[in-house]
Amino acid sequence: MKLSIGDTYEYEFRFSQDDVIAFAQLTGDDNPLHLDPDYAATTPFKRPIIHGMLGASVFTKIIGTRFPGYGSIYVGQTFQFLRPMFVDTDYKVKFTVQSLNPEKHTGEILGEVFDVTTGKITTKGVATLMHKEKI
Amino acid sequence: MKLSIGDTYEYEFRFSQDDVIAFAQLTGDDNPLHLDPDYAATTPFKRPIIHGMLGASVFTKIIGTRFPGYGSIYVGQTFQFLRPMFVDTDYKVKFTVQSLNPEKHTGEILGEVFDVTTGKITTKGVATLMHKEKI
Repeated sequence: MKLSIGDTYEYEFRFSQDDVIAFAQLTGDDNPLHLDPDYAATTPFKRPIIHGMLGASVFTKIIGTRFPGYGSIYVGQTFQFLRPMFVDTDYKVKFTVQSLNPEKHTGEILGEVFDVTTGKITTKGVATLMHKEKI
Repeated sequence: MKLSIGDTYEYEFRFSQDDVIAFAQLTGDDNPLHLDPDYAATTPFKRPIIHGMLGASVFTKIIGTRFPGYGSIYVGQTFQFLRPMFVDTDYKVKFTVQSLNPEKHTGEILGEVFDVTTGKITTKGVATLMHKEKI
């Protein structure tokens, strides 16, 4: 079924410290803010935060595999990292289709990541994608 | 030393198919466009492309660890995925400081990823960050 403006998709997720370590090794971002509790204690966050781009990877996962899923080609993405994200914490992302261009098979999907417990937004952004069948 | 507008930083990098598999496992983005040569052969790209967000992870690496480095806090990021990126291919990213707000310790850094062989831009975007000592 093709996407329609206003369609939504929600998904809950969490990351572990092992995920953070794996992301640091894969990308080379070994900023101690993410890995070293003693260093993180000296920052405003007081404890290690996960990489913003790791938390934001839920965008590529959902758009690439679920909504709209396989066949998606990523054209662009914006992110605002509004609040820190932590390991072993439940987050929910809500995606909402904002605009569609059926002639070009492109669209924009807003994603908002919430802390499930506090309800506060941690990360938001707009994905621009192409999908020949779904748009 | 503090950042100045116009400062640049360049870095060469490449990813392997093992990196792509690790990124797929970590993020859950197992889109066959990145993993399955037979599927990828049916797409305009003809062969597997790396995840846009994996190629773009060089932004978090460099900003988090080198330019300006440890102490960076990610505030926002835009990406345009202009051309596909492939494994075992040499890429270069060039970062350029675009704007600075010393009162808020924030700045914007443009990043452009080039294919070293062709010279064509694959990914570009602007990182917004905070750094108490460097900005």
